[in-house]
Amino acid sequence: MGPHRTANLIPTWSLGSLLCLLVGLSGAEARTSAEILDASSDSDWRQAAPANLLYVELPTGTVVFELNPTFAPKHVTNIRHLVAAGYYGGSSVVRSQDNYVAQWANTADPEPSLGEAVEALALEFYVPADALAATPVSDRDAYAATVSIVDGFPVASDGENAWLTHCYGMLGVARGAPDSGNGTSLYVVNGHAPRHLDRNGTLVGRALVGMEHLSVLPRGTGPLGFYEEPQQPVPLRSVRLGSDLEAAERLDIQVLRTDTPLFREYLAARRTRTEDWFAHATGAIGVCNVPVPTRINAGPE
Amino acid sequence: MGPHRTANLIPTWSLGSLLCLLVGLSGAEARTSAEILDASSDSDWRQAAPANLLYVELPTGTVVFELNPTFAPKHVTNIRHLVAAGYYGGSSVVRSQDNYVAQWANTADPEPSLGEAVEALALEFYVPADALAATPVSDRDAYAATVSIVDGFPVASDGENAWLTHCYGMLGVARGAPDSGNGTSLYVVNGHAPRHLDRNGTLVGRALVGMEHLSVLPRGTGPLGFYEEPQQPVPLRSVRLGSDLEAAERLDIQVLRTDTPLFREYLAARRTRTEDWFAHATGAIGVCNVPVPTRINAGPE
Repeated sequence: MGPHRTANLIPTWSLGSLLCLLVGLSGAEARTSAEILDASSDSDWRQAAPANLLYVELPTGTVVFELNPTFAPKHVTNIRHLVAAGYYGGSSVVRSQDNYVAQWANTADPEPSLGEAVEALALEFYVPADALAATPVSDRDAYAATVSIVDGFPVASDGENAWLTHCYGMLGVARGAPDSGNGTSLYVVNGHAPRHLDRNGTLVGRALVGMEHLSVLPRGTGPLGFYEEPQQPVPLRSVRLGSDLEAAERLDIQVLRTDTPLFREYLAARRTRTEDWFAHATGAIGVCNVPVPTRINAGPE
Repeated sequence: MGPHRTANLIPTWSLGSLLCLLVGLSGAEARTSAEILDASSDSDWRQAAPANLLYVELPTGTVVFELNPTFAPKHVTNIRHLVAAGYYGGSSVVRSQDNYVAQWANTADPEPSLGEAVEALALEFYVPADALAATPVSDRDAYAATVSIVDGFPVASDGENAWLTHCYGMLGVARGAPDSGNGTSLYVVNGHAPRHLDRNGTLVGRALVGMEHLSVLPRGTGPLGFYEEPQQPVPLRSVRLGSDLEAAERLDIQVLRTDTPLFREYLAARRTRTEDWFAHATGAIGVCNVPVPTRINAGPE
C-alpha cells in the first residue's frame, strides 16, 4: 500500500471494475494480494528447515536468515562449520554503508580457528536453469535475460544458468580476490538492490525475520561505510543454526511457497495493483519488488 | 566497490585489459568512475539553486533535498507556501517502514494554517519527453519503455511523456484520494525502489545530502510502519528553503551535471565495471543504480 496522508488512511477511490478487466478475470473482481494471502491454506506454506536457518543475535534483536545450499553448497557448508567452531562468537558488524550493505567480521588477533571450514572458496552461484522450479516474474530486467522466484529466492538467468540476485535482505560472502571468500565475513543488502554484485559476490541466503535490526544501524563514516571509532562495531551476541537450538528457542517460521497457483495469483496481484488507493495499476514488477511473505506461528499454548 | 573482506581491502586481481576491450576503448585503459570524477572540471558540476533546496533538520542532522519544479510545479509551489507559513514547524516523522518509506506529517489539532498553500492538488508528474535534456540509461527497465537521468533525477518515459521515478532517496507527496495531496505530509524512499508508486505518488525532489539521518530511523511497529508510541515520532526541528537561510548557514552544494560527455563516460564506467575487484563486469545498469554525485564545497577560509 502506498504512502498515505495520515489523516486519510482509508482509500476512498475505486478503480475496481477497471482493474478487474485489466487482470483478465471475468465474473469476479480480482483479489488483492492481502485477500489472496488471507485465503491461503496451510499447503500454500512451507516450513523453513531449521538446519537452513541462521539466527544472528544483535543487541536489539535477532535476524533469521534462510541459507540456500542449492545455489552455494560449498559456502553454506563452510558457514555451518564456522558456526560449529564458534567462529562468529566474537564477530561484530564492522560496516554499515547507506543504501548498500551492512557487513560483519571477526577482527580478533589472532583470528579464531576456522574449525573444519576451509580458508578459501571459489565464487559459487551457477545452477542449471532447467533444474529449478522457477516461477517467472515475466517482466523486463536490466541485468539478466530472465528473472524468477525459486523457493522464495530471487533468481536471474541467461537461459542456461541461473543465479541468486542481490535484492534487499540478501546475505552474501565478502571477499578480496575471487577465490578468497570463506564465509567468515558476510554482508547483507540494506538498500536498493546492488545488482552489479550479481556473479561477483556469492549469495548464500536471505533475511526472513528481523531485517530491521540491521537496516537501522548507524552508517559508518569511513570509506565504504566502515566504522571508524572503536565503540561503533555492533557485536553479534550469538550466531546459531536453528537445528542447534532447543525446541523452545526455535521460531516456527513458515515461508509462502512460490511454486503454487496461489503464489502466481499473488504475484499477478502485486504486478497489477487492485487496491483502491492506486490511480495507476502499474502492470509490471521487478524481481526485487516481489515480496515473499513469511509468517511465524505461535508455539503450543 | 563491492563488499570486501576487511583484511583484504586492496583489490589484487586485475581484469583491466579484458575490460578495456569490453568498453570499446582502444589505446588507453578505461577509467574507473572514481578516476573520471577525479578528472572532472568545475564546468562538469552545477550549483544547486538555493531556492530549490529544502533543508530538513532532524535531531541527528540535516537532510537536504533538491526540489524539482519542472516535473511538479504546483506541488513545489505549495511546499514553498507551507514553508513560508511555518506549517512544518510542529511536524514529525510519524512513519518508518522498513525497505519502503519514511514519512512526516503535522498531527497537531487543530491543524496549523496552510498559509497560501492550497488544500488539495491533483496528481502531477507528466512532462513532454522531448522537452528534456535526458541522458539515456539505455538498459531494459521492468516498469517503463525507457529510462534516463535528467538534471540528476531518475526519469521514466513511455516515449511521449516522462515522469520522475521512485528511486532511493526520492521525496514524494503523501495522499489519500488522488486529488488530496498538498505537501503537508511528505515521504522519502528508504529502501529498494517501490516503482509501483510511479504515477501514483507525486514526486517533488530527491535527497542530496544526509539521507542517512532518515534511513536509520527505528522502524514503526504499527501497520504501514507508523509509530505506535507517543514518544516515537521524530520531530523536524526546522524545515527551510536554502534561499531563506543566511549565507553562512547555506551549504555550497554542487551536483554532477548529467548532460555532459563526462557524465556519459561515468555512466558507462558504472555499467561496465573496470575496478579490479570485479570478476563479472556486469554490462548493464538500472535507472535506480545510477549514482549522481554531490559535493559540498568548503566556505571561504
